[in-house]
Formats: sequence, structure tokens, C-alpha cells
Amino acid sequence: MEGAALTRRGLLVGIGAVGGAGAMYAAMGALGLAPTAQDKEFTPPRQSDFTLRGGKAAASVVILGAGVAGLTAAYELGKAGYDCTLLEARERAGGRNLTLRGGDRLTEARGPAQDVRFGEGVYFNAGPGRIAPWMVTLDYCRELGIPIETFVNNNAAAYVHTNGETVRARTARADMYGYVAELLAKATHLGALDRVITKNDQETLLDFLRRFGDLGPRLRYEGSERRGFTEWPGTGGGAPIPAPGTLHQVLAAGTGRAITNDFGYDQATPMFQPVGGMDAIVKKLTEAVGADRIRTGAKVTKVTALADGVEVAYTGGTLKADYCIAALPPHVMARIPHNLGADVTAALRTPVPVAAGKIGLEYGTRWWELEDRIYGGVTETDLDITHIWYPSHDYHAERGLLVGYYNSEKNAELYGALTPEDRRRRALTQGKKIHGEKYRQNLLSSVSIAWQRQEHIEGGWVRWPSVDSSFTLLQRTDGRVYFAGDWLTHLIAWQAGAMESARDVVTRLHQRVLQSP
Amino acid sequence: MEGAALTRRGLLVGIGAVGGAGAMYAAMGALGLAPTAQDKEFTPPRQSDFTLRGGKAAASVVILGAGVAGLTAAYELGKAGYDCTLLEARERAGGRNLTLRGGDRLTEARGPAQDVRFGEGVYFNAGPGRIAPWMVTLDYCRELGIPIETFVNNNAAAYVHTNGETVRARTARADMYGYVAELLAKATHLGALDRVITKNDQETLLDFLRRFGDLGPRLRYEGSERRGFTEWPGTGGGAPIPAPGTLHQVLAAGTGRAITNDFGYDQATPMFQPVGGMDAIVKKLTEAVGADRIRTGAKVTKVTALADGVEVAYTGGTLKADYCIAALPPHVMARIPHNLGADVTAALRTPVPVAAGKIGLEYGTRWWELEDRIYGGVTETDLDITHIWYPSHDYHAERGLLVGYYNSEKNAELYGALTPEDRRRRALTQGKKIHGEKYRQNLLSSVSIAWQRQEHIEGGWVRWPSVDSSFTLLQRTDGRVYFAGDWLTHLIAWQAGAMESARDVVTRLHQRVLQSP
Repeated sequence: MEGAALTRRGLLVGIGAVGGAGAMYAAMGALGLAPTAQDKEFTPPRQSDFTLRGGKAAASVVILGAGVAGLTAAYELGKAGYDCTLLEARERAGGRNLTLRGGDRLTEARGPAQDVRFGEGVYFNAGPGRIAPWMVTLDYCRELGIPIETFVNNNAAAYVHTNGETVRARTARADMYGYVAELLAKATHLGALDRVITKNDQETLLDFLRRFGDLGPRLRYEGSERRGFTEWPGTGGGAPIPAPGTLHQVLAAGTGRAITNDFGYDQATPMFQPVGGMDAIVKKLTEAVGADRIRTGAKVTKVTALADGVEVAYTGGTLKADYCIAALPPHVMARIPHNLGADVTAALRTPVPVAAGKIGLEYGTRWWELEDRIYGGVTETDLDITHIWYPSHDYHAERGLLVGYYNSEKNAELYGALTPEDRRRRALTQGKKIHGEKYRQNLLSSVSIAWQRQEHIEGGWVRWPSVDSSFTLLQRTDGRVYFAGDWLTHLIAWQAGAMESARDVVTRLHQRVLQSP
Repeated sequence: MEGAALTRRGLLVGIGAVGGAGAMYAAMGALGLAPTAQDKEFTPPRQSDFTLRGGKAAASVVILGAGVAGLTAAYELGKAGYDCTLLEARERAGGRNLTLRGGDRLTEARGPAQDVRFGEGVYFNAGPGRIAPWMVTLDYCRELGIPIETFVNNNAAAYVHTNGETVRARTARADMYGYVAELLAKATHLGALDRVITKNDQETLLDFLRRFGDLGPRLRYEGSERRGFTEWPGTGGGAPIPAPGTLHQVLAAGTGRAITNDFGYDQATPMFQPVGGMDAIVKKLTEAVGADRIRTGAKVTKVTALADGVEVAYTGGTLKADYCIAALPPHVMARIPHNLGADVTAALRTPVPVAAGKIGLEYGTRWWELEDRIYGGVTETDLDITHIWYPSHDYHAERGLLVGYYNSEKNAELYGALTPEDRRRRALTQGKKIHGEKYRQNLLSSVSIAWQRQEHIEGGWVRWPSVDSSFTLLQRTDGRVYFAGDWLTHLIAWQAGAMESARDVVTRLHQRVLQSP
């Protein structure tokens, strides 16, 4: 199981994935990346900002890329009357915020196109799929009137599949907690901690451990109803899943990563999703910006900073504007000829694109709800599929869509190199190890995405080998070309990163316009 | 904080609340309460059952009480054409499944009536509010076409308020887990467990502890991003909540019960609720049964078992039927004159009614979402309010309703004895300790319920002092009068208990009719 796919936070800057937070804090502090004032408060530009400055006018801005960063920048600048034009190389706006539905066609570089055949109401969030409640993404949902619903990111009834064994998450958790509690109780009783913790505190600790591990009267872990039941209580008391494995067996099962998967602040329960598909955010931002401001199929071929503005050549012509916001992936931007200097090119080449992939499997029945009693949530595995996601919406509908894999790095490269048919076949073979033969039955259709093969995107996200001056240089450019994207934040691979970055650029650009002579 | 309100499972039969599961299993086994076959499978009675038996006809059944047990029994019997009549003493069906909306009027014994003034779309589940995914309640939602949505039962962003201190649940959890991991790592390093666990397993354990507690490189707990941030990551790395308290302080905070609150199999995340209010279940069952079969305001005054049937006298007359299902609370049934014998009366008097109360607080803004970033979930407290519930639906709506207390036993008796105004005042004073002054601002209206003062119900649920022969006697009656309700199951205080009990009675009654000469 890859740390990458499990805790994206951990791979953001290549450190901090393992061990305490200290290393990351230290690195950030040393580089002057400590939080800045504008993280705290964002005030959107307003028309009145200009009036107060005696007739100063909003500027024109060309935005490269109509992904979430570009759209957010245009939306916020539009509030003050900036004249924004977005150049989008793909056929539609949204970038990685991509929701696929029946009738859509998904193309990829060096591979066959896939026609999406999902039934009415079925959708597949091929890109971002969940939002943490503290993220600015939720504020945009509120502001734009996008209804949200709970995304189940932790389900006790889902499975953990590690080292060839499958158990319910509740069982894996009960066993690890049970033994951890028993061991610490034992060590306490043996007096091992007498120098570390007072007798009084030991009593408080033992009280907690009893509860935490559901320990028996002699502070032994002897199993627990928390493990689940082969027959649930009703008129009878039920039949709890019988005795747990030994301590050795439970440790050897290797469920540790899976059962702590939602401990991170970005994965903690509950999480949220827009009702009906993540692209509601793209739709509403597009409406607010004005669809006519977005030129799709417009591939940028050259960016030239001038003394009084920026000139952008693209497949449809040339555009001149006062400012430019480059909201493209850095590795894509790095290949576009420009006159911003060799250090900018070098900086753009620093972050490493990371492969990421997902498959949507549409079934004719929701057997995971009916038979497994899994309503939403994630099964964690050490297989190359990494996760299986169950839908957190339209419960009890006839059809439903599982995410059969959501992986990154090597696993995503492996799947991405296959044909769509072979990806499905492999995903089904893996899923069958958890769910049995039914995983291959009642499958109606599927679509898979390999983000590294998506044209003009070429990756799921990026990884910075280290937090270095390249990051700072691009985040804090002082010319007429600004850079924006999740890749310039500490929220890589989250839409919130794209939005925070856009807000930051908008704030700086607006300040500059207001202060220019 | 009362164990009662936190883990109802624990108080179901008065044992098992503390410590391991062993005691409860043993008690159940000794009394022959091990699971029976019918818990596994339920086959609803069908018309064809009679055809196959050569013209045998469905019988008439009088059902006392149109709560969830009575309605479910009528619904299932109706599938085979049984002629059911329900006598309901209250003015509407549903029993404790009660959802209050603007325009409703809530009366109580020995107290003033409350007029519900909630705005459009606001509702208050005054009785049951959540459903575990393994419960039969979800099957009925599916069968009856009731849309469901996630009920957030565990929210890292909610608070824990204990011993006068308020922290986010994520912070309390990170600190307890961090120190537990550190202590066990320390004990392992000291060799305290060398006789208990092999060196290899110790390494595996340490790997887990590092992850579980987010320990630093020296296996110390030095705080963690899991505690949350005073400023979330964005363009900057964010400002994590600074250093945790000492081990002594963290233990003394007493958050242990709160942070293990969802460990039980009946409270594990995710849980569910019908969209628009829990009473959707009552509405749909009533529609399926036929509203004309339910006589409301019909108080039963006498039950007489006859050789060939049952005669029931009630405030509207007398009814004779082949069979009777008494789906009333046992303490209410115990007071109704009958000829079922003194042992039945004694058995009915055995379970002890438990007080339970809730208050719904309607606010003009959802400040908990906007300011606290709490979307659904529960704040656990050691105050007499026990919990605060945040709504898991209609996120970002203008208005919203908090459950300002949900308590039982002594706390519920205390609140129940107050006037509705004083209950609200007290609930606000307590909630203010957690949320500050805003908890008293923007309050539009409130309604509180004291279940022990609800006529013909007189309690939130019951507690059996012990699993004894009274339980078995009433669950397994062999006369023409059957008893049904959550109180006769191991799912007390859950609708699933009422439904499982109804299914059990329906199965036995139907078998008897089919086998009768």
C-alpha cells in the first residue's frame, strides 16, 4: 500500500509522510513558508476599490487554463470588473475536476477513446471526489449555491484487505486497539512505567485502556462485540464474531495503515461532496464567470512579458492583456516558450508529475449495500488497486458505481499502461479477492482514467522533491505573469489548493493594480 | 457523562456496560437467549401460504399500540391478508418515532403544551434519530421507498467538553492516541514486554505505534497536525495548534469516554436517517397498512383472552379478534386489567422505564457550520445536556436545528421536571460553556420533550434489571396474546428492536394459524 495514495498530505513536499510533524514545520520555517497574513482573510476585489482610488480601472487579465485555479481567479477578479479571458487547451473547462456521465467520451494520449455508457443518474468523479469541512471549497459551494451531502470516508463495515486476508474495518480496529490496550495495561501493571507516570495517572490510564480496548475484567483482550457479528442482535443477543487471532497474528495482518487512514486532518470524518457530481463546482463557476470568456481548444504556444502587459499566442490567435495568470500544470507550462527567464523554466521543471488513476465500475445492483451492508466508505487494500470506494449517495438506487481503484505512482503507471479493457479486467480480478465472484457479475459498464495520459494535464498532481526556492520563486513572482494552482500550495491534489492559490494571486494582482501609478 | 446516554447497548440489560463482552455473553447463554434461527431469516407471511394449506384463512388480529412495533406487525401480517386493527391511545400513530414541525402541538402530562414554531423545512426528530447500517430499519426504508442520507455520528471537528475544558474531538483523540503510543513504545523499549511479545513483533508494533500516535523520530509524542490548526494549510503550511498538554493533563481532561463513543457496533460510523424526518417510516408504514385500520385516541381498558380469541375493551367500544398483539410499553400494559395471569403482570412490571429527553433549538443562522466548521456530528460533554447534535442535512441552509440536549436517567428527570422555558434556559446556559455567547443569539424557537411525561408512553425506553425469566416469558407467550416491542429484544431503544420483535411475533402467530386445526 502506498503512502502516496493514502495520505496525500504526506507527499506534498516529499517530507513529513513518516514520523512526526516536526520535520515539516522546521523545513517550512527555515524557508520562510510560515503562514502569511493573507491565508487568514480573503477579501475579494470589489468595484468600489477602484472608485475609492479615483477612477482607476480594472485591468485585463488573460488566464491560462480553465481548471479550478483559473476559474476561481476569473470568478474573484470578475467581482471587481476585471476583463478576464481564459484559454483552455482541452475541449471543456474544469481540468481535473471531471465528472463523467452516460454519453460522454473520454480520450487519452496514446490510447483508445472510451464511450461512457452509464445509466441515468449514474456519475463518476474521475478527479477530486471529497472535500474536508475546513476547506475553502465548501465556502465556494455555499457561495455558489451548490448543495452538498456527506461523503463517507470511514466505514466500519467496509473491508481491510492486507496480506491476503480480508476483514471488516471494525474487526481490524477492535483487534489492534484491544491488543494495544492489553499490552499497555500489562506494562503498567509490571511497573515498567512507574518512573514515567504517577500511580494516580496509571489508574486513569487503565480506565481509558479498558474502554479503548474493550478489555475483559482482567484487562485482557478477549474479543469484543466491536468486532461485529455473524448474526446481529435482535430478539436474541446475536452471535458476535468469535475469538480474535493472537497478538502475533493481528500484528502480522498489517492492518495498521488502513485503520489509521482517516487520522489525518485532511481525511478525518466527515467529508463532503456536491450533490450530483463534483463538476457542479465547474458549472457554477463557469456560469458566474461567463462561458463566453472561456476559449476551449485554445492551446497556448508562447507567453511574452512586455513592459506594459503580456502577449499570449495560442492556437486561435494572439491575445494581449495587462496581466497573465498561468494556471497550468507546471510541467506543461515549462514546455511553453516564454521570456520569463531560465530560472522560471528551471523552477517549473522542479515539481515531478505523479501518475494517478481511477476506474468507475457501474453495476446493475448495489450488492455492496444489499449483501455487505456497506453504505459508502472505502475498503483499504495492499493490492495495486489501493482502494475501493462505495458511493455515498443515492443509497438503495437500483444501479450504482464503485471506484474500483484509486491509485497513484507506480500502481497508476501500471494500470495506465494497459488498455481500458485490461484495466477493468485487472481491477475486477483484484476486487474479487475481497468481494468474491459477485464482483464480476452484474457489471454494466466501466470507464477508467489515467491522469498522466490526459492531454494538457499529464498527471494526477505533482510532488516537490523538497521545499525549495523554486516553490517560493513561482509563488511570489513579481512580474506581470503570475502562477496559480494547487501545486503552489500545501494542499496539493486538493481543489482547495487551487482555490487558495487563486485567491492569493488575485489579492496580489489587485493590490498591484490599485497601487500602480 | 452517563454511560446510559452514550452506549444504550450497554444499559439494555443492565450488564455489559463496563468491561468486556464476556459477562453479557455468559448471561445470555445461561438463559437460553442465544440467537435463534428466526433471527437469521425472516419470510413475511404470504397469501399463498394459505392456498397451499387448502383454504385456511388469515385470522383477525387486534394490535394494541400503533408505534413502530405495532405498525410493522400490521404491515407484515397484511401481506398475507390478515385483518388487522390497531388501537392507538395517542392522537397519532408512530409512538416514539415522532418528528415535530412548525404547526405541531406537543402536549405532556402535568405540563403545558408547546406550539412548534419552526420555519419551513425545519424538523426535529424528538425520538429516534439515527440508524446503523446493519439494522433492519434500513431494509424497511428500502422496501417502503424512503430515501435515506448519511447521519454524521462522529465528527473530528465537533467538540469534547469535559472537566470544564473544551477541545475539538480531533485534538482530544490525537493527544490520547499520541500518549498511549508513546507509553507503549517506551515500555517496549524498556524490555517490559520481552516475555510477552517477540522482538520481531515488537518491531511491527512500534511501526504501528509510530503511525497510530503520529510519534516523532524518537517515538515521543510532540503534538501532531492531527490536532488541527489555528490556521489551515493553504499557500502557506498553516499554523498547527501548538504543543499538547502533558500526559498528566491529557489524562486529567477525561476525554476517554467521548473519543471512544463511536466504537460500539451500534454507534460506528456511518449511520443513516430518512431524508426529511424519521417519521417518513411511520407515514409509509401507515399508508401500507391503511390509515383506516388505525383507531387513534383509542385507550385500551381491558384485555380478555377467550378460548377462541381475544376481547379488547377500549374507550371507543369492544373489539373481538382471533389474536392480539400487545405492542405497548410494558409498564403501560401492566396497568391494563387482563386475565393473562399474575405472572404476566409481574413480568410486565419487571423492566424499569427510563427517562429520556431532547430539546430542539432552531437558529436563524447555521453558525456552527459558518464559524465552527461543524457539519453534522455530535459534541460530547460531561454536562447534564450530555450531547449536542448538529444537523446532518440541508447543509448551508439559512436556518438549522440543533439538538441541545439528548439525555437520559437522572439528567432527563431533572430537565423533565422543568417548564419548557426553564429547560431551554438551562440548555442554553450549558451550551454556552462550549460555544460561547452566540449559542444564545439568533435562537428562533425551541421545543423540548420529556419522554417520561408523554402520555401512554411514559419513558424513553426500559431497562431490564437482569436478563431473567420475565423477559423469556413475555417474548415466548403461547396464548392468544403476544407481546412486541423493542423492550423484548436486545435492541432496546432502537426502532430495529421494535421491528425485529414484530417480525418474530408475526412469524410465530402465522405459524400457529397455519398449524391450527
